Amino acid sequence: MKHLARENFVYTMDQSNNPAIRVKSGDQIVVDTYDCFENQITSEKTNFDSIDWNRVNPATGPIFVEDAEKGDILKVRIDDIEIGERGVMVTGPGLGVMGHRMENFNVKMIPVQDGKAVFDKKLSIPLNPMIGVIGVAPENEGISCGTPGAHGGNMDTKEVTTGATLYFPVFHEGALLSLGDLHAAMGDGEVSVSGIEIPATVKITVEVVKGQSISYPFLENEAGLTALVSKETLDEAADTAVELMIDFIHEQAGLTLSELTMLMSATGQVQVGQIVDPLKTAKFHVPRYVLEAYGVKVFGES
Amino acid sequence: MKHLARENFVYTMDQSNNPAIRVKSGDQIVVDTYDCFENQITSEKTNFDSIDWNRVNPATGPIFVEDAEKGDILKVRIDDIEIGERGVMVTGPGLGVMGHRMENFNVKMIPVQDGKAVFDKKLSIPLNPMIGVIGVAPENEGISCGTPGAHGGNMDTKEVTTGATLYFPVFHEGALLSLGDLHAAMGDGEVSVSGIEIPATVKITVEVVKGQSISYPFLENEAGLTALVSKETLDEAADTAVELMIDFIHEQAGLTLSELTMLMSATGQVQVGQIVDPLKTAKFHVPRYVLEAYGVKVFGES
Repeated sequence: MKHLARENFVYTMDQSNNPAIRVKSGDQIVVDTYDCFENQITSEKTNFDSIDWNRVNPATGPIFVEDAEKGDILKVRIDDIEIGERGVMVTGPGLGVMGHRMENFNVKMIPVQDGKAVFDKKLSIPLNPMIGVIGVAPENEGISCGTPGAHGGNMDTKEVTTGATLYFPVFHEGALLSLGDLHAAMGDGEVSVSGIEIPATVKITVEVVKGQSISYPFLENEAGLTALVSKETLDEAADTAVELMIDFIHEQAGLTLSELTMLMSATGQVQVGQIVDPLKTAKFHVPRYVLEAYGVKVFGES
Repeated sequence: MKHLARENFVYTMDQSNNPAIRVKSGDQIVVDTYDCFENQITSEKTNFDSIDWNRVNPATGPIFVEDAEKGDILKVRIDDIEIGERGVMVTGPGLGVMGHRMENFNVKMIPVQDGKAVFDKKLSIPLNPMIGVIGVAPENEGISCGTPGAHGGNMDTKEVTTGATLYFPVFHEGALLSLGDLHAAMGDGEVSVSGIEIPATVKITVEVVKGQSISYPFLENEAGLTALVSKETLDEAADTAVELMIDFIHEQAGLTLSELTMLMSATGQVQVGQIVDPLKTAKFHVPRYVLEAYGVKVFGES
């Protein structure tokens, strides 16, 4: 099994980044990650000013996947996530939904014990370990690992977890996949601007899918298929996610556009990834029983 | 038990509407409803032009609840929903997320059989019967039953179903509650502009809560507490729902604003009601285990 240490990272997803490792389609890779503050926050007394804000959202990578070429799809299965022993949350002026009402930067250390995140004496939070940042080199100029987009990136979406398979557009040779910014737990929206940020070890399997293209990431899990779109507004992101999914299903389902749109209205789910990053992420989810009823094959299925 | 027939309805929620029935706090009421087209669509051959579009979204009511005064909260428990035998869906030019790609108005009749909505030979959809339109007379001018707002109205939110309790701001004496626009099933977003529209009989219990006020509807169910906010954009609606919920919990929880915001980021869920009505509806949901851990009492609980 290939291994990529966390010291191999980027702050920007960019076609010009040198590969940290080269792998073949079908390879499994173990990837170590820093937390989103590059492990700089070590206590609740850490000051906002003492943090180097140029060192946030390091994503381990990039991973060069052989045979991945522009116009292909990169399939990434998340096989396992092992999180660290202590997480951290932050909020403050200008950060997140309540940033306009915050006067100070605040830090909270959150130990992970017995399968829960210990928020305080009254409450331990069930874990939902997930990957905040995962994506490929974007089509044009480099994009900070703190920002999501068509290439993936900082989507902060809680379904990006063990058992899920992500599909990314490939814009450049090798795809140049990177990932980091793990959370021990996060709710849809990520309203304070942070999940429970934590270092981790992630096991993934990568595969190149030829002969099909996508314009935004999709996610497949037991529940079904989800389009993940990031835009300036949640409204635009939601509308685009719905339209991309309808166009994908329409090619295969044998329904008129009107029938399919009605079907999506009755069974599809518009959901929220996050509303606090530079772009916002919406999801449109279609349950598996609907895909199966109409024989819809997901990318790369024969 | 009191009974209100569907022939008692309004197209606009308005303080000047004459009460259709007067009930006491604590009364249970059975309310019959038309579908959102006032049962005008009787076949898939129904033309767009043959429908009287002034006769849409009739809401049965208004119900005058004695002792309800401006500044109170009206608590409405949904005890039971019994839907009809056949639903209808529509989409067309200018309607819903795909309206810009539709050339014709399309109608689909959907029979309800054996506890499922029969979409076609390939797929029957599990039912999730819910109330699309429910609300009180708004604070100022009347609002069409097709539009949601601080008074409730056309929120098209799938959690508005049996077992849920809704809390509405009371703006006028008697509150003037009306409801209609039932769906046999609907997904978050209601992307085609219709759920599976269907006539129904709804059983509710109303209660006046004194000494507390709210500015938007809240919904309580087994899962927890949800703020329901409708605004021009999903972004504004989501931000407001988060802030209202945080302010409500903050009064009771004994956490700083920063701590509570972080807690909401890790455990709260920003969700979508609908994105196709004149205003869009977002939800912010807080799980029950969080409320219980901090001893947060919902409106009217002692």
